[in-house]
Amino acid sequence: MNQILGEQSIAFEQSSYIIGDACIAGEKEGQGPYKNEFDKIETDPYFGQDSWEEAESQLQLQTAALALEKTGLTSRDIRYIFAGDLLGQNIATSFGLMDLNRPLFGLYGACSTLGESLSLGSMAISGGFADKVMCLTSSHFGSAEKQFRFPLEYGNQRPLSATWTVTGSGAFILSSEPPRAGASVRITGITTGAITDYGITDSMNMGAAMAPAACDTIFKNLQDFSRMPEDYDKIITGDLGSIGQEILIKLLRDKGYDISDRHLDCGIEIFDADTQDTHAGGSGCGCSACMLSAHILKQLRAGVWKRVLLVPTGALLSTVSFNEGQSVPGIAHGVVLESA
Amino acid sequence: MNQILGEQSIAFEQSSYIIGDACIAGEKEGQGPYKNEFDKIETDPYFGQDSWEEAESQLQLQTAALALEKTGLTSRDIRYIFAGDLLGQNIATSFGLMDLNRPLFGLYGACSTLGESLSLGSMAISGGFADKVMCLTSSHFGSAEKQFRFPLEYGNQRPLSATWTVTGSGAFILSSEPPRAGASVRITGITTGAITDYGITDSMNMGAAMAPAACDTIFKNLQDFSRMPEDYDKIITGDLGSIGQEILIKLLRDKGYDISDRHLDCGIEIFDADTQDTHAGGSGCGCSACMLSAHILKQLRAGVWKRVLLVPTGALLSTVSFNEGQSVPGIAHGVVLESA
Repeated sequence: MNQILGEQSIAFEQSSYIIGDACIAGEKEGQGPYKNEFDKIETDPYFGQDSWEEAESQLQLQTAALALEKTGLTSRDIRYIFAGDLLGQNIATSFGLMDLNRPLFGLYGACSTLGESLSLGSMAISGGFADKVMCLTSSHFGSAEKQFRFPLEYGNQRPLSATWTVTGSGAFILSSEPPRAGASVRITGITTGAITDYGITDSMNMGAAMAPAACDTIFKNLQDFSRMPEDYDKIITGDLGSIGQEILIKLLRDKGYDISDRHLDCGIEIFDADTQDTHAGGSGCGCSACMLSAHILKQLRAGVWKRVLLVPTGALLSTVSFNEGQSVPGIAHGVVLESA
Repeated sequence: MNQILGEQSIAFEQSSYIIGDACIAGEKEGQGPYKNEFDKIETDPYFGQDSWEEAESQLQLQTAALALEKTGLTSRDIRYIFAGDLLGQNIATSFGLMDLNRPLFGLYGACSTLGESLSLGSMAISGGFADKVMCLTSSHFGSAEKQFRFPLEYGNQRPLSATWTVTGSGAFILSSEPPRAGASVRITGITTGAITDYGITDSMNMGAAMAPAACDTIFKNLQDFSRMPEDYDKIITGDLGSIGQEILIKLLRDKGYDISDRHLDCGIEIFDADTQDTHAGGSGCGCSACMLSAHILKQLRAGVWKRVLLVPTGALLSTVSFNEGQSVPGIAHGVVLESA
């Protein structure tokens, strides 16, 4: 039986295996520290389309197709897709994945959506509802700036606390069976986040808004699984950026846990802030998805890391909520990844 | 074991029980044919708040609280919430449910979100991941018109094919155990929809855009479960409206199934089009949610109906996709409800 742990966690009896994955990143990401690790770097920000939204849809479709191709599968082998993006009404996902013609659960968890999709995907596998599912998220600098901030043509200045939305997508194929050959990674547990709201109202400082949510989910994970930070080789957040990271480490220290020697943040990792002018770091659903595919899974498959807690973090705002003076609540969904 | 049926369906071995529910509707809904069936009718369209979005959040919170109260539970008894709304970045849900402080899976399936939430909620129960979950959706006429169409102050005319967004919310508590007393309703199966796109580009005719999706999901359900329409007392769609209903019945006839004598559409039911000037009918995530709580569950509990196929339908558009000339794809998620 699957074990329900504490208030927010599950330890899966039947783990799901990540048997395939792919990531495609944009040009700027392709100039960063992980330039040699992405499956593909697309230098055309429009991905051959006519709008930023269509570009992101095309990015999703290409990433999904590449994950299938690398795994030797066709879309018919996938029972469910769990996917989402940052745009209003999830249109990158709807228009991107419709041609795959698979049962689709559309998700919205802002930049935490990767954690949400892997959580629900692994529940579908571990619950015996599917043999194989695909979990996919994306973000696109152009579509996100247009949706959340200013038109690119406006050329506004950005405060140093701002993050840079990653143009990228990652797709992950989960299976009830291990891959036929080679090392694998299993999802052995999840810790599902609740919304936390510390009253942050600065949409240009999303790291500060999301850090309490990441703290809460990591704390609950350690408690629910009766683990210490040392039981994970790495604890990896989604896109807190440099300011959020500081806050997270401090908040967890206040609760008695020191993760400073094993914390990584995908947003800090994906760009070189010194040379790429990305301020606090990268963000977006595509950030943690690209880093999971390009780097984290590889380290786990190689056995460099044995167990990782991945915690994609989301800032639950819209331009409407922000312009109406609402705060920016955060949410974070934790996924336990182990080398198999 | 749960049975995986065909390409898109699951028959649950361990059904989940809908042990509690509540619905709150707006004033116009409260003047319609089901005025005596809603738990509460709120005549203040702002629900005591300052904006349409906050009004919808308040509507969600009140509905969730009422469902808990009616069931004799507190939010701590709920392991997961599966919820969504129509607004960009799901803000009605994020700001509405954060005070419940429960692990939250944010969903987006446009008006099909009720089907999506009941599907994932019943998977969580049937998979042994939770004892009790809450599934909740909402829509609000004011927030939806502002998001998708025109400011209310503009007073635009509406074509007869347009639907009227329901101000309403329904919350459903699913449990692995039947209720302590009284008749109950079980979720015995699901059929998860894929996106269908017939190239409809008229956002004022969403019934036509969604009918093919409803047809596809109903067809797959009948095939996957080896059932005929007669095996259901009712086949109930979400918000096709009168034009979509005609198309659905015709499309299914072309595939060899006649559902005309047992089809209901929540959008047609919830208003009296002749006297309420609602044109093609009601729509929105709150439409099917209110009708499920106010009417469908009651008929099932009373044994008037034994088995119902509920198919909430969604039109996957945003103002951005629509204004960029994209089509309006549809999706529909089917849920099999049986009196227990």
